[in-house]
Amino acid sequence: MYSSKLPLEPNFLLSYLMLLQQNSIGEDVLIASAILEKNMQASIQPLVDLTYDDMLAVNELVRSKACSEIQMIPEVANHLISSGGKRLRPMITLAAARMFGYDGPHHIKLAAAVEFMHTATLLHDDVVDESGRRRGKSTARMIWGNQASVLVGDFLLGQAFKMMVDVGSLTCLDIFSNAAAIIAEGEVMQLAAAKHMETSEQEYLAVINAKTATLFAAAAEVGPVLAGGGDKIRTALFRYGSSLGLAFQLIDDVLDYGGIADNLGKNIGDDFREGKITMPVILSFSRSSKEERLFWRRAMEMGENDNTALATALALMHKYKSLDDTIQRARLSGERAHQALLPLKASPQKDALIKVIDFCMSRFH
Amino acid sequence: MYSSKLPLEPNFLLSYLMLLQQNSIGEDVLIASAILEKNMQASIQPLVDLTYDDMLAVNELVRSKACSEIQMIPEVANHLISSGGKRLRPMITLAAARMFGYDGPHHIKLAAAVEFMHTATLLHDDVVDESGRRRGKSTARMIWGNQASVLVGDFLLGQAFKMMVDVGSLTCLDIFSNAAAIIAEGEVMQLAAAKHMETSEQEYLAVINAKTATLFAAAAEVGPVLAGGGDKIRTALFRYGSSLGLAFQLIDDVLDYGGIADNLGKNIGDDFREGKITMPVILSFSRSSKEERLFWRRAMEMGENDNTALATALALMHKYKSLDDTIQRARLSGERAHQALLPLKASPQKDALIKVIDFCMSRFH
Repeated sequence: MYSSKLPLEPNFLLSYLMLLQQNSIGEDVLIASAILEKNMQASIQPLVDLTYDDMLAVNELVRSKACSEIQMIPEVANHLISSGGKRLRPMITLAAARMFGYDGPHHIKLAAAVEFMHTATLLHDDVVDESGRRRGKSTARMIWGNQASVLVGDFLLGQAFKMMVDVGSLTCLDIFSNAAAIIAEGEVMQLAAAKHMETSEQEYLAVINAKTATLFAAAAEVGPVLAGGGDKIRTALFRYGSSLGLAFQLIDDVLDYGGIADNLGKNIGDDFREGKITMPVILSFSRSSKEERLFWRRAMEMGENDNTALATALALMHKYKSLDDTIQRARLSGERAHQALLPLKASPQKDALIKVIDFCMSRFH
Repeated sequence: MYSSKLPLEPNFLLSYLMLLQQNSIGEDVLIASAILEKNMQASIQPLVDLTYDDMLAVNELVRSKACSEIQMIPEVANHLISSGGKRLRPMITLAAARMFGYDGPHHIKLAAAVEFMHTATLLHDDVVDESGRRRGKSTARMIWGNQASVLVGDFLLGQAFKMMVDVGSLTCLDIFSNAAAIIAEGEVMQLAAAKHMETSEQEYLAVINAKTATLFAAAAEVGPVLAGGGDKIRTALFRYGSSLGLAFQLIDDVLDYGGIADNLGKNIGDDFREGKITMPVILSFSRSSKEERLFWRRAMEMGENDNTALATALALMHKYKSLDDTIQRARLSGERAHQALLPLKASPQKDALIKVIDFCMSRFH
């Protein structure tokens, strides 16, 4: 069992939100927040330390490959690249390669390619979701327009594939090109499901498996491939990444209904206002009375989603423990990630990858 | 010298447009149109015939790879795929592979990948240009929204890379991933240049080299790569494709100011209304008087682009022979495409690829 000390109980989230809304944050909440912040940092620190030198090289490569004589390209790309993402995915690639004794130079390129695939997805996502803010900043599309976001995303995807080709591993190319198609498929699935309250839990899990878990899985799996590891090890890392990604997304869904807006860089209720059907909504809807279901339909399908509606949604999530239960599902997925690594021989990388499961569960920003 | 019988003199274009506007198309014009249509068909027929069986396989592969359980994906993809494009790029790939004796199965996959890269670009282009119609039909974004166009484009690009990985040639992957990044770069370049009357002829040539010529070049170059041809042959095919693509785009620019709307599936003056600076505009502007330049600025930079403004633009293009001279540049580029193939040994494919230069020059739709 990994030591999941889940810091954010849904009741806490809800009361926190209420406090924020009243502009009267109590001292105890601030202290609790500081402790959580410290715990979270502790759970990602081993991975950060282990990959420190390699990440310097990755960051340098990311900077250089986002360059172009066309000024708008580095402007748009760097806006997102330098906005303080944790770079979890490339760190996973680096650790997964080193874990099996890889000592060549190619993991740097694959890690940078993973980060570019992720950045390209975010740029396109913001256009699709018509998002105004990400990571506490205006989205690229708000500054440079949808067009630039679409095209710079395409450019970064092209650069990602170029780096993969440079590495010269057809197996890695297979993993990543497959991931690219599945991620897009997941995004279309989500688009088709948007504003449809009939979306089932299974359908939603298929969406986030495709759109989020796939890239985590690919990021982890290419590590042992590069190191020449066998199928068993590849499968272990694939499962680890996939389960971690699922947990990550489910916690994201919870945070959208209760994270701390300033820290998260995302407004509370963004998903709600976009009519995005996520796990907390699906669980609430399935447990709601006939009348409450009408509320959900009006809110998610017909766009009656002002702040009063958001408060009602939060109250219903509280009533039906939908945030608790989403976290519970994330916890199970985190368990699966942990289980996947268990049979592998001990290494500092293995420990760090296990610890980072806690990070994904306790993310504040 | 290839036999360029350019059918569309600009004066003819202009008078044709005027006739169309007056709803009084004379019989002589209709006859001329029929002759041109026949010439055009004759110039592409050898390539169509030579690649007929292979194209059946390509079309089947395109259909199957555009499939997905997510219904929206084949809907959006097939809307564009089945809209009657000539599939010039995949035919070039097929002929370029066969030309050097390739008799394996992989050229089919590469040809389908080329078509998917092209389709993905069109889907994203329509979003970027906010286009309402393409090939005589509503664009996908008008029916399913910008979001679906962005994401299905991403999906097709992922599928294209999967097919390339299937083929297993790192050189082909290198060519295509490089092309993907350059195409996106060209699109961003065009976006940055949009509505800027200062765009020079050289800058514009760089844009269309990147956004159009690159995919033609890649489509042609992978043929000899697959057949195991040497650098000299690869370079010849690359140059052929690149020059052909440039000519193709320049003729496209002319057609936008004078094609036959119903046949072309594109409204006359689309580029004008979108403030897109293309070769005919650049040539007109550089030759215009101070006062005329003010007109161009108002039209292209400030959006004063109603039908009266379009008529003025056409009159200025007529006055300064900008359409003639754009065609002249296309003709020179077609010459270069022809020259590139000259040193290669005789083959039916070589003849067909040379004939298709005429097609690109005489396109009506």
